[in-house]
Order: sequence, then structure tokens, then C-alpha cells
Amino acid sequence: MPENRTDFVTIALMPSGRRGAVPKGTNLLEAARHLGVELESICAGRQTCGKCQVIVEEGHFPKHGLTSAASHLTPVDGREAKYLAEHALPHGRRLACACEVVGDLLLVVPEESQARKQIIAKVATDRVIDVQPAVRQVYVEVEAATLESHGSDWGRLQRALAEQWQIKDATIDPLALLDLQPALAKGKHALTVTLWQDREVLRVQPGYSEGAFGLAVDVGSTTVVVHLCDLRTGKVLATESAMNPQVRYGEDLMSRVSYVMMHPDGVERMHRAIISTLNDLSRRAAQAAAISTADIMDVVLVGNPVMHHLLLGLSPVELGGAPFALAVHQSLDLKARDLGLKLNPCARVHVLPCIAGHVGADNVAVQLAEAPHAQDELMLVVDVGTNAEIVLGNREQVLCCSSPTGPAFEGAQITHGQRAAPGAIERVRIDPVTWEPRFKLIGMDDWIEPASLSSPLRRETKGEDLRATGICGSGIIEAVAELYLAGIIDRDGRFAENGPERSARVRFNGRTGEYVLADAEYTSSGKPIVVTQADVRAIQLAKAALYAGVKLLMQARGVEKVDRIVLAGAFGSYIDPKHAMVLGLIPDCELEKVTAVGNAAGDGARIALLNRAARLEAARIAENAIHVQTAVAANFQAEFVAAIAIPHATDPFPHLADILPQTFAGDGKAGRRSQRRHARLAQAA
Amino acid sequence: MPENRTDFVTIALMPSGRRGAVPKGTNLLEAARHLGVELESICAGRQTCGKCQVIVEEGHFPKHGLTSAASHLTPVDGREAKYLAEHALPHGRRLACACEVVGDLLLVVPEESQARKQIIAKVATDRVIDVQPAVRQVYVEVEAATLESHGSDWGRLQRALAEQWQIKDATIDPLALLDLQPALAKGKHALTVTLWQDREVLRVQPGYSEGAFGLAVDVGSTTVVVHLCDLRTGKVLATESAMNPQVRYGEDLMSRVSYVMMHPDGVERMHRAIISTLNDLSRRAAQAAAISTADIMDVVLVGNPVMHHLLLGLSPVELGGAPFALAVHQSLDLKARDLGLKLNPCARVHVLPCIAGHVGADNVAVQLAEAPHAQDELMLVVDVGTNAEIVLGNREQVLCCSSPTGPAFEGAQITHGQRAAPGAIERVRIDPVTWEPRFKLIGMDDWIEPASLSSPLRRETKGEDLRATGICGSGIIEAVAELYLAGIIDRDGRFAENGPERSARVRFNGRTGEYVLADAEYTSSGKPIVVTQADVRAIQLAKAALYAGVKLLMQARGVEKVDRIVLAGAFGSYIDPKHAMVLGLIPDCELEKVTAVGNAAGDGARIALLNRAARLEAARIAENAIHVQTAVAANFQAEFVAAIAIPHATDPFPHLADILPQTFAGDGKAGRRSQRRHARLAQAA
Repeated sequence: MPENRTDFVTIALMPSGRRGAVPKGTNLLEAARHLGVELESICAGRQTCGKCQVIVEEGHFPKHGLTSAASHLTPVDGREAKYLAEHALPHGRRLACACEVVGDLLLVVPEESQARKQIIAKVATDRVIDVQPAVRQVYVEVEAATLESHGSDWGRLQRALAEQWQIKDATIDPLALLDLQPALAKGKHALTVTLWQDREVLRVQPGYSEGAFGLAVDVGSTTVVVHLCDLRTGKVLATESAMNPQVRYGEDLMSRVSYVMMHPDGVERMHRAIISTLNDLSRRAAQAAAISTADIMDVVLVGNPVMHHLLLGLSPVELGGAPFALAVHQSLDLKARDLGLKLNPCARVHVLPCIAGHVGADNVAVQLAEAPHAQDELMLVVDVGTNAEIVLGNREQVLCCSSPTGPAFEGAQITHGQRAAPGAIERVRIDPVTWEPRFKLIGMDDWIEPASLSSPLRRETKGEDLRATGICGSGIIEAVAELYLAGIIDRDGRFAENGPERSARVRFNGRTGEYVLADAEYTSSGKPIVVTQADVRAIQLAKAALYAGVKLLMQARGVEKVDRIVLAGAFGSYIDPKHAMVLGLIPDCELEKVTAVGNAAGDGARIALLNRAARLEAARIAENAIHVQTAVAANFQAEFVAAIAIPHATDPFPHLADILPQTFAGDGKAGRRSQRRHARLAQAA
Repeated sequence: MPENRTDFVTIALMPSGRRGAVPKGTNLLEAARHLGVELESICAGRQTCGKCQVIVEEGHFPKHGLTSAASHLTPVDGREAKYLAEHALPHGRRLACACEVVGDLLLVVPEESQARKQIIAKVATDRVIDVQPAVRQVYVEVEAATLESHGSDWGRLQRALAEQWQIKDATIDPLALLDLQPALAKGKHALTVTLWQDREVLRVQPGYSEGAFGLAVDVGSTTVVVHLCDLRTGKVLATESAMNPQVRYGEDLMSRVSYVMMHPDGVERMHRAIISTLNDLSRRAAQAAAISTADIMDVVLVGNPVMHHLLLGLSPVELGGAPFALAVHQSLDLKARDLGLKLNPCARVHVLPCIAGHVGADNVAVQLAEAPHAQDELMLVVDVGTNAEIVLGNREQVLCCSSPTGPAFEGAQITHGQRAAPGAIERVRIDPVTWEPRFKLIGMDDWIEPASLSSPLRRETKGEDLRATGICGSGIIEAVAELYLAGIIDRDGRFAENGPERSARVRFNGRTGEYVLADAEYTSSGKPIVVTQADVRAIQLAKAALYAGVKLLMQARGVEKVDRIVLAGAFGSYIDPKHAMVLGLIPDCELEKVTAVGNAAGDGARIALLNRAARLEAARIAENAIHVQTAVAANFQAEFVAAIAIPHATDPFPHLADILPQTFAGDGKAGRRSQRRHARLAQAA
């Protein structure tokens, strides 16, 4: 230890602003660490990786006066000089690991040199993710073998990992072992080692060789999405998606379960189909990012329980009937090769845990992304797909359930319904006075208004030739809400028989009405696109199921209102919170506290890919979540019936007071009549 | 706890003789355990497996007088009655888990009910092996899933393992997971679970389903041997062997290394070849034992370093030259499927550790079997193959080295040499007076003596038609030793020019002699089988290399003599210790302390298969063994030269005093001349 104060120098590091005294002669990487500024370093101070660059500024310290800081570091030489020359760095850059401090210094740490990189997850709560992935690379120099040396090359690498990186008792994948001797020979005993959880070596490459990537995969019933991420920076390099090929065996989950029950090789077929698609998507993502699939070292998989089981090759049959038993609910750590994934032969796979027979790893991922368990506010998360998974909770407790909404929100079972794809009507407005519509197509920036109005057809002025092909989930939700707001349908969902000036927009066949949303000239089929009485009923039943699930959780929690609502799922990012609430899809809430976040399950998968602690968090989420079984809940049916009305037979919506029609006040004689009708409707459904 | 002495009963258990008091009403399985008698139990007391059978004898205890013991157990009923009826057991048998003791008892525990089965390894030191394999089966009953139950089937199985077998935090092979739900359904929630190291589930089978088997595999350069063992009883059910198919790429280790250096796909080819042979042998062994290969759950592999590397798919090139670096020396735990072994898809493989570039897992297995590290006596273990591995040690310290003997001991490089196979001359005697030979062929029980003597040709009398095809390793060793003892060759290995009555057995071409061992009429080729001067020289060089290695270890240990010698290896079990010592293959020792044990490496593999603690012991053996590098030892060459003489130029052999010819006294002028000649001989070799 230095004996007097003059042996210390003062260092300040920007942008953190941290400063303090360190003994003269301290290595700069060590000094920064001592002051709480962690610099990136893959080569552990061997002046090889260039990750620990700092910018030397002239520093002014009142005690010492103005100084020329550059001379306050030991001079550039040896490997550092070679590195700086080879990489043509801007003046003033130094490798922190290569220099010792000899005088006071002001340094700037560029963003790329900051360790503990953080990324913002695109979720409702702006979650910050520390990039601390399960798979990382380290650079080591391994002692050469001699006639006297004991052990083996792997023994020497183990020792190097222990000494240079404090990684003790590492194991090695037997396939990675095959590359060890050639890599040592080629790298002249220097290696880049890719590690899983700091305990298993997945890969050895000669010399310094940066590049380890991961896949965050959300396997939906309909769509499979793969995000390719750089495991060092956390950046998403490519996102690829495809239709789930299992669709050919059954559109929805139950039909896939039925397929397995009818076909002895059904599991194997659907398992192979999804694995093959994942291999396609990985290859496409790797091509898009100009990397090799052999550099993909880690995968996080999420999906609903049926998808989860089929991914693993497990039969989903038990999930098709009570007691809806999962084969496995815990998270799993696998080898990609055991699943048939064609990545690096030693790549790892982490499958997030499931909660219950209908609440799967995708919902755990949603919770990981939206983090209701970390909120003070009581948060409602609604993840809508073919089923809706509903989560209600805060720091104290998180409840969840699934609700059988059916596929209406995905555009199925709707007369002109379709999946969200170019040409689909995704947004709808109806003039409450004229009952005339405006709508927006996916793939077209501008709104389409009827040609009879003053504005000319925009698609013609733009030379586009996109015509409406159908209505997707968000379109039908807005359409039904707008029909109600315009008074075209009443709160029971029935078409009003007398509109303004007997508008041609509403047509009747007997007492069954329909609304002409897009005239024949705007559609690809040349026939009008309509919203029928049956369509309105289908949406009412779906939203009632969802709402009843929400109510069940609210009752289980003993609350009357929620503080914040997150809409996630396939149509989640397109949906308008106001229309969702007008329709009675979600309970009353401050409108600005309702957020649509899109594919939150994919975000959660990405978080688990980039942060190993998040995997433990996911396990805790799955462990602690209290699952409420809607199938056996005594009051589910009653809640369901009450929720068929628009927005609801009895629940108040104070935050919609200025928007909802005057007719809304559903506790009189008309309300009771309406509920009886709805009970019959529910029974028929 | 019972409050007074009368609440206790006395139990005696035979054959252990253990006796003691237990509280009245104690379960008999518990009572036996309490008295230190561990009974077998797979079903953990569910009266399913029938392993805990005991025989109830009438017991006489002086304190109580003669009693009828049967009534001192609770009566047979329920599951036990069903089991006893179904299995037609002899009278007096009970399932210990099913009864409670209500009075004093004398019981006999039949051998098959004794847990901690022991088997005797066929090794020099009669090693007893506790059967405690890494893979075992347990029977569990799993809670059924209900609508209210959380978790999953795997979660419930984990809980059952923890509660019923105290196995905590078990994991499951993802492929075994696929069988879980069907097995639970078929077994009505009862399962037989196969566990590895009490921590990974390898297999789940419905109901009670006994049968887990393992393979102990010794991959030699020439021969591959597979022992199929019952993992519960430890019994060897079948042994199969085959030629190592890599022989087609090179007869000896160095030529296989050369093959890899010359052919880019050499490693892959030889790896596939050996794996394919192991699959053949496994299938044959399973057929012989009438089991399915799907019931083979564990494998232990041993082999010399080159075999070890090729087995794992590792290049052996580094082993072909200094510094002879192993890619990996530690033991490895693998999945059989990752090696391409076609056993149960989740079967495990344990590869024993290696010590050094020329001292491999086969030598560790030999040490595990012969256990020099557990002896008080100083033990020399010589494992002879193409190379000899030599081990010298006791409790305090174990040294080892390898010595380049070349393949002469395997019959190669010998004029009429051949591998040990039917027709090979394996034993030889020469009459010291008449110089006439007698010999024994592999595959024929009786000795063959020249027809000119009174005894008729035995093979004719027996109707056999086996003729000599060549001389194998043990045959050539006995032949050279007998030639020396008969005075046909001198201690320098030179043929004596004047024999008794100028015997026609010795022929000269100039000054180079040869001995006619089998006349033309006894050979399959119709030409005589001879031992030439060159053959004698080859054996001298090989045995000198071996002896020099032994001396090096003795010098390193600082000893002049050893207490016990174990001869292991391909010819180990056939070799006559006396002839080995007369030839000077091994140093002087009491003859009855020289043992030939055959394939000790295979025994060691079997021990590691049957006892999980032995795997840790093997790791300690490899860790603690001190490797002496013969290649760089300064005095190896001098020792080698001195060991060319028969039995040795200078070392005394007091235990052969009555056997060796009077000419043995090698420290005069003739001795020094002889050593100079040997030095030239060694240089030429």
C-alpha cells in the first residue's frame, strides 16, 4: 500500500460522473472498476478485444490545476500499439486494460465500452433489461502442453477459465470438445470460449473471435415469430415470422388436439412441422443479419401449452380435457440438437415454464415483459389470441386464468373476417349522423372514405391498387363499437330498424340486419363487405367470455376496479383502447392507462434470452401465480351473460361517460329483459 | 415411544446374526434396517416388487421360551396376500414391508433379498464389489391430477420421488419426458422410474417393471469386449467380443494415428467403425441374454488413449508425438445417443479418465480392478498389449508409465506368430535332455507330443482335426523361456551350436540358428513351425522394453524389489508366471505372488458400471497416479540394454535359483562383452 497521500491520483469518468482516488500505477481497467464503472472486456485485459476503449480528455481538477491528461497514462506500446494501429481508432482512444494511471485524469467511456449494457423492452412499462445473457464469450490463453505437464488440453483450459475468469468446475459439451485441439493449434493456445451459465463450454474457437447470437421464439397457434439477437449488445438483428405449419392439421388448438387423438403419428408430424419452420426462420434471420446459424448459441422458446407440448414432442391430448394436466410445467434446459434445431451443434434451448393447462409459457413471457408482479398499481393484462389469457396483479399477488373467447377476435367466424394481412380493414369510423363509414386497410397509409363524399378516392390519387379483402380482428372490434356509438345497433347488439333518413347502409332480411361497411367498388371481390347481426353476436360472445374472465379474477382479488390495463396479443398493437372499452372487452379504466403492446410474449422471450436472471424470475412468476380455473367457477356463467350487453349489462363505465350513448343505464326493466335474452343467447352458443 | 420394556420384542436375522429389540408394531422392513440389515426394496414398501422376502423360522429365545414365530407377525392380507398367491412362494415366506412384528422372531434373509449385493471381481486380489450402480430403478405412486392441482405430471413425479425416495430436485431427460403421460395413464399413476445418480430420470415405465442393464466395454486396439450386466444383481449376463474394426486402417496404434494424419476423414471413419461394432456387440449381448437393447441404460467405456480419443470422435494425432497431449483426461458423462450408440435413447455413458498420453482409461480400469493404491504390499501391475502399461505402487503412492514393447507379445513380428485364436500354439515345453518339444493348441484340451515318442497323437484318438497354425504371444514367451532353460539358446539369446546328439530340432543357416517347434505333420500349412534367431531377438527387445519400464518405476520409487506382480492384458490369463520370470519379462518375485488376471481392464470397467463410488475412486486414481515419462528418462536406454539378456544382465533372480541354468551369473568378463553386443543390438532395433 502507498504510504502517503501523494501516491494517489484522482480519476473522473464520464458520463457516469463517478470520481475518486486510486493508487498511482493502477491499471486503468481496475481503476474504473474500483470506482464502480464496469468496462466491457472479453479478453480479460490482454489488449486483444478492444472492448474497453476510453477517450482521454484533458481534465481539470481544482486541486491540481489544468493538466495534459494524455501524459497521465503510461505510454502506448506493445499489443496496444498494434491494436490501435490495426483498427485506426480516433485520436485520444486508449485500451483501459493496457495503461496504468500516473496522474489525474478525466475520461469518457463511450457507450460501446460500457459493460452491463441495457436495452429498453418495448413494453407498456418501459422495462429496462440488463444484457446479462446465459451465453457469453470469454477469451483465454491456455498454457501449452509439455512432456512434463499432467492432465490434458481440456484440463489446461479448465485451469485457464478458473484463473483468468474465476469460472470453476466448468464442463464441456462432448461435441465442443472435438474442436479443442485444432483450435488450440490454430489459435496458438489462445481461444475464444462460449459459455452457458458460466458452467458449460459450448464452443471453442481459435484466437479472438467475437460473435454469439440467440433466438427469442414465440410459437403462436397461428404465427411463429423469431427474433435474432446479438447476445453481447442485446440488439435485435433480424425478426422473421411465418405461419405455424400446424395450421394444416387444425386451425385452432382444439382441432390440433383432435388431430392427435385421431392420428397415432399426429404429435410426431406436428412436432416435425414446427421444428422445420423454426429451422427455416433461423436460417432466414441469420441470412438477414449476415451471420451463420453456427453462431447461434442460445434459444428461448415460449408458446401456449399446446404449442409448448408439440414443440417438445409431447402429446397435447391431456390438455384437451379436464383436468387439463400439463406433462411438464417447469422451465427446461435442453440441447438444441435434441430438438432437431439446426443451429450450432452445442446450442442451448431454454423453454419458459407454464402455469396451468391453459396458461402457458407465452403467458409467463407476457408477465415477464409487463411485470405485473413488480407494480404497485393493480395491473390487468389481457393477451388475446384464440384463447385469452388474463392476468391481474401487483406486487402482492398475481392471479391468472384463461378464457375461451374463440377465434372471433382473430377474424374467424366473422362473415367477412380474415387474418391481419394487407387488404384487411383494420380501423373503422362511422359518422353518427350520416351512418357513413370510413376505414383503413392494412398496407395503406390513408383512410378510405366513400366516393360520394367530397374527398376523392385516395388510393387512386396515390396510384395504389389495394382493395379491401375483409375485416381483421381490430377492424371488427372498432366496427362493432362504432355501430353502437352511432346508434346503429343497440346495447343488446340488435340493429336499429329506423336509421337517419332510412340509410342504405343498413339492410334487413326480415328482422335480421347488416351494415354495409365497404361498397362493392372498394373490395377485391367486387361484392360489398358487411357486418352482419351474426358477426355482432360472435363478437359479443367473445368479448363476454373475456370480460367474465376479468371479472372472475377481480372477484378473486376482491377489487372493483383496476389501475392499468395492458392489451397484448396478435391484434394487441393495433387495437384502439377506447373502442375496446366501448365494446366492453375490458372493464372501465382511465383511458390513458390502457396500453396496447403487441407481441408481449415475444418481448418476454427476448428478455429471458438476454438476461439469465430473468429466467429465474420467470420460474418465480410461474410458481407464484395463482391460477383461477374458469371452467369450474360457479359464477362464470352469470358473469358471461351479464357481459354480453354493450358494454355491459350492469357494470358502470365512468371513464366513458362522455362517449357512450344516453341509452346506457342498464338496470331498469329493459336491462333485465335484455339479460334474459342474453342468457338464451349464451345457452345457444 | 413405548413406556416400558414389555412393549419391545426381540428379532434375530440370519445369516448376519444381527439381533436386537424393536418396539412392538414396527414394520419388519424398518425393523431389519434398524438392526443394520438392509433388505432389497424397489417399490419402497408397497408390496409390489417382492424383493424384501424373508423366511420366518421358529425362534427360540431363552428369555421367552420356544414360540411359534409365524403368529408373531401381523397376518397376511391385502396386497401381500395377492402377491404371495400370484407368485406361488414357498410356505413361510413373507414380504417384510407388509408385516409388523408383534412378538419375538427368528428370520432368515435369503440371498436375493439382501440389499447391497456383492460380487467378487475375478481379479488378483479377490476384490469384492458392492452393487451400487449409477443407474437404478425405483417404483413410485404418483398423485393423480385434478382440476385444482397445480403444476404438472412431472411436478407430481418429482414430488413423489422426494417423498417416497428422498430424491430431491430430480431432472428428467427430455426424451424420457415424452413417455411420462402415457406411462401414468397405463400404470394408473404407478411408475417404475430409472434414475441416473439419483438425480436424472432416464426412463419412466408404467406400473412395476423391473430390468435395467449396463454394458462394461473395453475397447482394445485389437479386440473389443462387451460385458452385459444386470444392474440390480451385478451378474454378467453375456459377454461378447469382436475384432476392433479399426484394424483395417492400421494394425497398431501408430499406424492408426498415421492414417488420421494422411486422411482428413480418418477420425470420422474410425469413430463410426468402432461405434458400429459396439452397436453390433450390444445387440448380440442383448440377444444372448434375451433382453432388449432398450433396457440397456448405462455404459462404462475404457480404452487406451488412442482408442479413447477415437471412441469420442477426437483426433489422436497429438498422441502420436511429443508432448503426447491428451485432448481430455477427465472422466466424462455423456448421453449414449450423442455417441451414436443404439441403446435406450436416454442411456448414459461414463468414460473413465486417462492418466497421460500413453496411459489411458484402460489402465485406470486395471488399477480400479487390481487396486494397487489400496494395498500394503508393493504391487507391480503389468498390462501387456501393443504397448505395456506398468503400474507400481501401494497405499502410499502409485507410479505408472508406458513402455514401447511393440507387438511381438501379440504374435506380430514373429516368423510364425499369430493372434491368440484356435490352432495357435499357446503353451510349450522342451525336454532339457532330448530337446524334444511338447505343445498345446488353443481349442484343444490335450498336449501334443512328437509321434516318434510312445504316446500316440492325441488329436487322432479324439477325432479332432486341429493342426497348429502358428504361435501366439504366450506360446512364444514359453518357447523362448524353454529354449533357454534347455540350453538351446544362451543368455544372450544365441543358439548353441552343439546340442545333445546334434539334435535335428536345431538347424543352422551359417551361424544363425532356428528351432523346429512343430513338425510339418502337425501344422495346417504342412510346413514346420519354427522359432528363429530373429524371433528370439524380437522377444528379447520387447521384454527388455517392458523390464526397463519396470526398473524405471522401481528406481523412481527407490525400491529394489516388489512384493506382488499382476500380469494383465490380452495374453495375461494364459501366461505362466514362471516362464515370464525366466524370460526376464518381470523382475524377481516369490512365484506364488505372481498372478495372471486376464482382461483386468474389462473387470475395472465392470466395477465402475456396478458401483458409482468406484467412478469417484477412478477419478482419484487418475488424479493421484504419478506418471513417469519413459521417453525422456535418462537411464531408460541403459536399463533397456541390460534387460536384453535372459533373464537380465545384472539383476539377480533368487526365486529362480533352482530353475535357472548354472550359466547364469552375469557379472564377469563375458557379461560385459554381452552387454556391449546388446547395446549394438538395441541401436539396430
